This record gives sequence, C-alpha cells and structure tokens, in this order.
Amino acid sequence: MIELGSNRYGKSGIRLVKVQRNASTHTVRDLTVAVALEGDFRAAHVEGDNANVIATDTMKNTVHAFAREHLTGSIERFGQVLARHFVAFEQVDRATVSLDEHRWVRIPTADGPAPDAFLRSGDFTRTAVVASTAAGEALEAGIRDLVVMKTGHSAFEGFPRDAYTTLPETGDRIMATRLTASWAYGGAADLDHDASFDAIGATLLDVFAEHDSRSVQASAWIVGRAILERHPEVQRIHLVLPNLHHWLVDLSPYGQQNRNEIFTATTEPHGLIEATVRRGS
Amino acid sequence: MIELGSNRYGKSGIRLVKVQRNASTHTVRDLTVAVALEGDFRAAHVEGDNANVIATDTMKNTVHAFAREHLTGSIERFGQVLARHFVAFEQVDRATVSLDEHRWVRIPTADGPAPDAFLRSGDFTRTAVVASTAAGEALEAGIRDLVVMKTGHSAFEGFPRDAYTTLPETGDRIMATRLTASWAYGGAADLDHDASFDAIGATLLDVFAEHDSRSVQASAWIVGRAILERHPEVQRIHLVLPNLHHWLVDLSPYGQQNRNEIFTATTEPHGLIEATVRRGS
Amino acid sequence: MIELGSNRYGKSGIRLVKVQRNASTHTVRDLTVAVALEGDFRAAHVEGDNANVIATDTMKNTVHAFAREHLTGSIERFGQVLARHFVAFEQVDRATVSLDEHRWVRIPTADGPAPDAFLRSGDFTRTAVVASTAAGEALEAGIRDLVVMKTGHSAFEGFPRDAYTTLPETGDRIMATRLTASWAYGGAADLDHDASFDAIGATLLDVFAEHDSRSVQASAWIVGRAILERHPEVQRIHLVLPNLHHWLVDLSPYGQQNRNEIFTATTEPHGLIEATVRRGS
Amino acid sequence: MIELGSNRYGKSGIRLVKVQRNASTHTVRDLTVAVALEGDFRAAHVEGDNANVIATDTMKNTVHAFAREHLTGSIERFGQVLARHFVAFEQVDRATVSLDEHRWVRIPTADGPAPDAFLRSGDFTRTAVVASTAAGEALEAGIRDLVVMKTGHSAFEGFPRDAYTTLPETGDRIMATRLTASWAYGGAADLDHDASFDAIGATLLDVFAEHDSRSVQASAWIVGRAILERHPEVQRIHLVLPNLHHWLVDLSPYGQQNRNEIFTATTEPHGLIEATVRRGS
Repeated sequence: MIELGSNRYGKSGIRLVKVQRNASTHTVRDLTVAVALEGDFRAAHVEGDNANVIATDTMKNTVHAFAREHLTGSIERFGQVLARHFVAFEQVDRATVSLDEHRWVRIPTADGPAPDAFLRSGDFTRTAVVASTAAGEALEAGIRDLVVMKTGHSAFEGFPRDAYTTLPETGDRIMATRLTASWAYGGAADLDHDASFDAIGATLLDVFAEHDSRSVQASAWIVGRAILERHPEVQRIHLVLPNLHHWLVDLSPYGQQNRNEIFTATTEPHGLIEATVRRGS
Repeated sequence: MIELGSNRYGKSGIRLVKVQRNASTHTVRDLTVAVALEGDFRAAHVEGDNANVIATDTMKNTVHAFAREHLTGSIERFGQVLARHFVAFEQVDRATVSLDEHRWVRIPTADGPAPDAFLRSGDFTRTAVVASTAAGEALEAGIRDLVVMKTGHSAFEGFPRDAYTTLPETGDRIMATRLTASWAYGGAADLDHDASFDAIGATLLDVFAEHDSRSVQASAWIVGRAILERHPEVQRIHLVLPNLHHWLVDLSPYGQQNRNEIFTATTEPHGLIEATVRRGS
Repeated sequence: MIELGSNRYGKSGIRLVKVQRNASTHTVRDLTVAVALEGDFRAAHVEGDNANVIATDTMKNTVHAFAREHLTGSIERFGQVLARHFVAFEQVDRATVSLDEHRWVRIPTADGPAPDAFLRSGDFTRTAVVASTAAGEALEAGIRDLVVMKTGHSAFEGFPRDAYTTLPETGDRIMATRLTASWAYGGAADLDHDASFDAIGATLLDVFAEHDSRSVQASAWIVGRAILERHPEVQRIHLVLPNLHHWLVDLSPYGQQNRNEIFTATTEPHGLIEATVRRGS
Repeated sequence: MIELGSNRYGKSGIRLVKVQRNASTHTVRDLTVAVALEGDFRAAHVEGDNANVIATDTMKNTVHAFAREHLTGSIERFGQVLARHFVAFEQVDRATVSLDEHRWVRIPTADGPAPDAFLRSGDFTRTAVVASTAAGEALEAGIRDLVVMKTGHSAFEGFPRDAYTTLPETGDRIMATRLTASWAYGGAADLDHDASFDAIGATLLDVFAEHDSRSVQASAWIVGRAILERHPEVQRIHLVLPNLHHWLVDLSPYGQQNRNEIFTATTEPHGLIEATVRRGS
C-alpha cells in the first residue's frame, strides 16, 4: 500500500519593509518571512481537494496585513502573532514562521545620524523561528552569516595520521568561519528578545576573540558553553561553522620565507563543523 | 550542568573530476563530494584533544585517492566505499557521504559524438547520500534542480477564502517548479543504481507531463505514487517543490485581453511544498 | 566647472513568459529583457525636471504589452520592435534592448514529446542586443554560459619562464570554459536569425570539439575564424573564455601514479581570455 | 580576410590575505586581485606560439610574491607596483590590475578592540583599477555594493505618461540602491589614497542622506557634483545606481490604510541608472 507521509507547505521569501515615522525621525524594519504549515492536508494531496489549503498567497497577504499592528517589537513577537494566527485554523497542527531581519543603520552625517537615511549593514542577519502547535510553542533565535577570523591563538595539532594525511600540524594558523547559530530560550514568557540577542551576540564575539582555539570543534564548545554560562535564558545552542580555509602560500620558489604572513583564501572545499551545547539534566 | 549535544564535522565541496581513457575515447565523471562524521569526538570539543579528529583535509585526500580504483560505476557504489572506509575508524559511529554528479554529454559534431570533448548539461544534478554505521547502511538517491513547467492541465481552485485572501481561483494556470527529490531503495544489494535512476527519472518526467494538476500538493502525490507503483525498489520518496510563480500580466490598461498568454515570472516570494510518499504497512 | 558626462538609464531584469497555444500544443517563450536609453536627460539630472524621463516602469509595461503582437519570431526581431519604439521618443538618441532567451524543451514521454509540459534546459542562454539610433541599428547575437571541456587535444607549452613561474609545461591538459560569445551580423535585413544562431552554434561546438588547442587564446582564434569562414553573415565575433582550471591531483603521497586521470576543479582564481575575430579590410 | 581584433587575457579572482604582525597586534589585508594584459599576443592566437604568453599562473604567483614587500599601504600603491611590473615585459602594451579590498574590523571585546580577531564588514567593498602603459598610468578608485536607502525626501513626479504608463506620481517614496562608484584622480603623484577614499566616502554618505531626491538621476548628479566640489583631486566620477524598488503594499482589501508604512521589496525587474559627473573645460 502506498500512502502519504510527512508533508508541509507554505510561502518563502516574503519581503516586508516597514517604515515607522515619529515626527521626522524614521525607523526601518526589513524582514524576509517564511510560513510553513503542517496538518490535515491529506485530501489536498490524495484527492485533489483544496478545501483545507490556505493559499500561500494568503499567507503572504497575512504577513503584510499584520505588519502595521503587530510588527512593533522583536521579530520573535511578530513571529508569535503570525504562528498563532495560522495554528488557529482547524486543519493546522503546526505553524512555523521563520524570520530574517536585515539590519539598516542610520547614515552618519556631519549633523549626526540621519533621521531618514540608512545604510544596510552586511555584517550578519538576525533570525528567529517560531513553531506553534496546540500543545505549545517553540522559539529559536539566531544569527546567520557572521564572518569572523582569528589570526592568532589558533592551532590544529595532535590529530591522527593515516596513509592519506598530508596536512602538517600547526601551532599558529588562521581560523575563519561564516558563523550561523541558533538557540532556544527557556520558559520566561516576558523575555526581552532584543536585549537577549544583543547580549548573546556580544558574548559570542567576545569569547571568539579571546579564547585559544585548538580546533574549530573546541571553539564551538568554548563559545557555546560561555553563552550558556552567561545567559541563563538560553537552554541550548546549535553552532554551524564552516572552516573558511586560509592556506599559507609557498613563497620558497621566489626565494622568500613566509612567516605566517601571506595566505590565499579558498571556498572549495571547506571544513564544516556543527555542534550543539545544552544544559544537561 | 552544561554538556555537549549532537555534533558532526567533515569536509564539503570536494571537487573530483575523473577522465577515463579507452583508446582515444574518453569518459568524464564530475562529482562534488561531502563527508561528515559522527562519533567519539567529545574530547576534541571539551578538552581540545585532537587525537580522534581525522583531519578534514585527510577526508579530501581520501576521496581523491579512492577515485582511481573505486569510481568505476555509480556514485552510490563510490559513496559506499568511502562511507565504509570512514566508519571503519574506531571513533566513528556514523559516516555520511553525499555525492552530486554533474553531467557532461559528448559534443555532437559533424563526425558524430566527440570522443574527447564534452558539454556540461545544466538540466539537473544527480545526487546520492550514503550513511554507514556499525548497524548497517542507509542509501538515498535523488535528483536536484530539475526545472519543469506545465502550461496546461494545471488548476488551483476550491481553496478557502478568509479576510486576507485575494488570489482568484483559476482552472488554467502555469505550474512551474525547481524539483528536488530523494528516494530510499529497499533491500536488494545488487541493485543497478544507474538503471534505476534513469528509469525513475523517466517516470518522473512522464507523469509530470501527463497528469492533471489540481495543486502542487496533488502533483507531488501523483508523481510520488507513480514512482512507487512502477519501481518496486523504491521504498519512499521525498519531493521538494518550490512553486515558481508565473503571474498573468494585466494588459487591460493597454486595451488588450490576456487569454493566458503573457506572464511574468517572479522568484520572491515563492510557494514551497514538501511531501513524502511511502509504502505503508 | 562641473558638468554631466555620459549617462543612461533603463529597466533591467524584465521577465516575460509567453505561452502560444495552437490547439492543444503549446509553445513557451521565456525572456529576460533590459531596456536602456540615452538622450536628452540633462534636465532630469541637473534640474530635477522629469518631463523627459520615460519611467522605467513604463518600459516594463511596454515590453509586456508588445509581447502579444510582436514576440512571434526571433528575439532579434522583438528587440528591434522595442528599440524602434523607444528611439522614436523625441528625447531619446539611442535605445538599447538586451534580450536573454531561456530554453524550454518538450518533456519526452512514453507518448512522444509533451504538448504542454516543458523542461528548462540549462545548457546555455541565447542573447541578443539591439541598439537603435536615428542613424541606424546595431545588432549583436550571442550565447552565454555554454560550459564545455576538452579532455584531449589540449596543451599549454612553450610559454616564457621568469622568477615567478612554477607552472609545468604540459602536452595534455584538460581545457574547460564557460563560453560567452557575441557576434555582429552584416547587412542583410531579411536574415533568418534563428537559423543563423543554430548554424553558428553548431559550428562553435564542432570546432571546439575537433581542434587541437595550444592555448585558450589559440582556441579562441580557431573557433572565431571558423565561424567567420563558414558564416558569411557574421562580421565580427567576440569571445570571452574563462579558463576553468582542472588541476591534476598529486597522488604520489598515497603511492599512486596519476596518468592524467584524477583532477580537482577550482573556481578561484581563474584565467580569463577575451578576443575579437573580425573581417579585415 | 579574417583577422584578430582586440584581445586581452589574464587572471581573475586571485585571493590574497596578508597578516601584518606588530608585537601581538595584527592587521589583516584581504584582497581579490585581477591582472589583464594587452600587447603583442597575435602569435599566441594565430600561430599557437606561446613564447610571449606570460602564464596566468605566473600572474597569480607574482601577486602573492609581491605582497610581502609591496602591500604596505593603499591598494592603489600595490596595484601600481604590479601594473608596472607587468607592463615592463616587452610584449605588454597595457597591464591592468584590478583590486577589491574586503574590510575586516577588530572585534569589540570587554577589553577593547581585539588585537588578533576580526569581523568581516559586509557594508561595501573598496575597489581600485590601475592601468599602466608606456605612455603613463590611469588610476580609478571606487566603492562597490554600498546599499543605502532614503525613507524621506524622495519623490518621483512630473514624468511623461503614454499609453503604457501606469505608475502613479508620488511625492514620498522609498529610494534604495546598491551603489557602485568609481572615480579618477587628477595629477598629484603623492596623493594619500586612503585619506581620499575615506573623505570621499563620507561626502557620498552625507550628501545621499541630506539631499532632496526628485529621481535617481537627480540624486546621481547631486552626489557626484558634491564629490567633485569638495574633493579637488577627483576629476570624474561614474555612478551606477540600480533602483531597488520598494512597492507600497495595497492593504485596502483588508480594510487598512497604508500611509507609506508597509512595503515589499523586489529584485526583478529593477531600474538601472548610470551617470558620469566630470570637470568641464
């Protein structure tokens, strides 16, 4: 017998820009939102009956329509309102809303920060995922595409060697990564998500900068553990760390020594390290 | 207490091109390979002890070194050899090898297909994932980025309307998608993966072309069910179907009627439909 | 004195899909169009006076509105109609219309080619650029992103060596490129652009496959010359040939010989060769 | 007669990262460099004779080998050294070196800016192009991918309307662009390129933020003119300004007014405005 297994559907890439005007001072919110629903959609698949299928176009409209009233604080709060709206449909068991926030900062001018002109900061994207079910809500906050580099206090030594190992040990290498992290918050319903995000981001950068790295794996642990130690609201953090290799260039053919000075960066292939750090029982 | 949760690491984006020479007739194999390992890597994270850490550079070397002898048939077979090699390390519990095969076809010439010149076909990428553990092996074959369109026999009607629904019903719309599918094979150890891939791909295209679509969800079910019906070796298939919207252009401001003739294609936002079809018990 | 220099403006990325229906057999045309205008736009810049500024939104509308009646043959013909429309505005001195055509082929089914289902071929994009002025019209046809590879009959030897040269000479290397070419046609007003495109593309592939390559530069000349020799309507061809390096992998650390068999492909850095071949006086 | 026309070749995408160490405080320079040569390369094309063909691999090596000694100041200076090296080859008539500088900023920590840990700023890329010939040298500095937005003081009114015009006039619209600019410096051989870049960038942001925009064209002029007025070393500036459309969402179907508050951003199609502002005679 052939049957339908797990399934979900929704709308991705919903672009939403909100300009809040307070006298002549504006604020910009710039989001990309995705909505995905799971539930009683068997008939849509198996019988071609769309009676339960909330159109993905309607999802897009809903995101736009809710923005005026509900996008007034953190993306987590906006995501909650949207997820709860969709899970309230009888046929929906789980509504997942993913939000990326693109950062615009005021342009600095001779007269101070501009009231109505902005520069898009490409340093990272803030993310949130809210999943609502009848049983409750799961919320993950995160950061994506934060590119960081250590030019000191980074080594990779003591790894095993087999017939295919040619990499030399090194006590001093560049370690660079395009960091993506997501973390789950514990219970407090009144958590200030913006304040937590800023504080966790500051810890992440601080620890990344100051620790001694023996490997990307060790760095993931050290950064993750510090975040859990310093931020009791974080229950668990997942880190994804591509190793953006910077290879020492062999300058000896040109009669030069290369004392950890000249590197070439490559994108293919790259190491990829993932780890979760969590509170144990 | 803070502890390490699930973790894995490996090398992604390993590029491998093999030229097989049979007299003056060449054959090209072009793969992108990723290796990921799970196992006893706690010390690497928590203690900075790399004694168990097979370097990701070694993984890359291994893929290259194994290619001469072992990349002689399907990517599934090559992936099995690699996965079994890595899972044989004592500290490894699970080795996952992902392979993308990029297709090169012989250039047609006035003298027939060229023996040693090739054209890269961008129609799709063939994929395989092999995961080996002490308990056994899981294998998924697949296809990625197959862009297909139906200009007829496609509708979307009968969906519910709420305060945010503006999409009109339509009995005749373009349905286009960038299809990704992966499927699991059942038991037979001696399956001819190349023949199965070709046959499954042919079914997929045939059914996509010939069925009546009442929604992307219905199409996913119809295509998936047909593949399971016609290919007993397939146990389960997962389909990911972004809905690449083609919107009818309103030509009425220019005094023209648009009888389903002129469309504009957009990439943001897009619908996203995922479904699994499987053999039930 | 500060003054306005050369300037132009327009709309890029105009997506247009046309479905032609002939009984139950459909045909798909899929274009991305760009329009750019030069002319009397000084006041728009210097005085903020938009009286001459045809809105770029209007350009998009015009492309859509003209498609029903005028997109019935080659993209060159459609581009001519559009360029002539825009150059007819008094303030426009030059209207340049660039067109990319994305290819959809009928899906093969058990019952033959599908009448209304299509597969997007990623092998290449056909291009055309039409520039209209009061003095006349220039037309360039072309092809973009045709990825081809020679695994034999390709060498690179005899190049000069200085203090920074480490590349070994080789009589047998892979040569691969993502070819872009554009060519100008001579006078004939009634040229069949579709037939010429097909014939030139066939020559390009044929000669690429069959020639002996001593360098990418030599290949550019050989391919370009052959196109001019065999296609008298072509006055000039410009070829852009990135050298997609395939490097022989050193397998000696693993005790293996690599007889031009195992390569790794890289994207950074890459060679980049450009040349024009033309009819002389 | 068929002949070779203009041609050039070189290496693109040369990645170079230099770590300068001053006691425990490091500085990172991260460049992507391209080299292109024009000159006496006819024999390479027409006769397959590589005696004059400096290998593109040698270009890459040269960039790496020169970095230790010569990448000590601005990218303009490094580009000059490289361009002069290559133009000194007898067969080279023109050597063009293009440099992109990727910015890394010190990670802020609780103890102040990190001495050896960096964050890649994605706000923009600094660029330079140096072209050397026997007759002299041309130098262009620039900035790429600076994404900026005005939420006020931006209008688009008074444009002509024809049969295909549907865009409403608006006295208050979002104007956003991904700005690319390049400018030529006048004579002074001892110009401080770093100081000029910083000052020009500050003017660009300041004027973008503070001016009233009647169109993207008017903004290009106002920004360009201000840069020439305030920076006498700039002879000419070329601005490329895609119009990243932010469309007001129609909320009326949901019974809401949209007072310039809720927008959706699109990438296809987009306006594209280019203009040069220069010193006249």
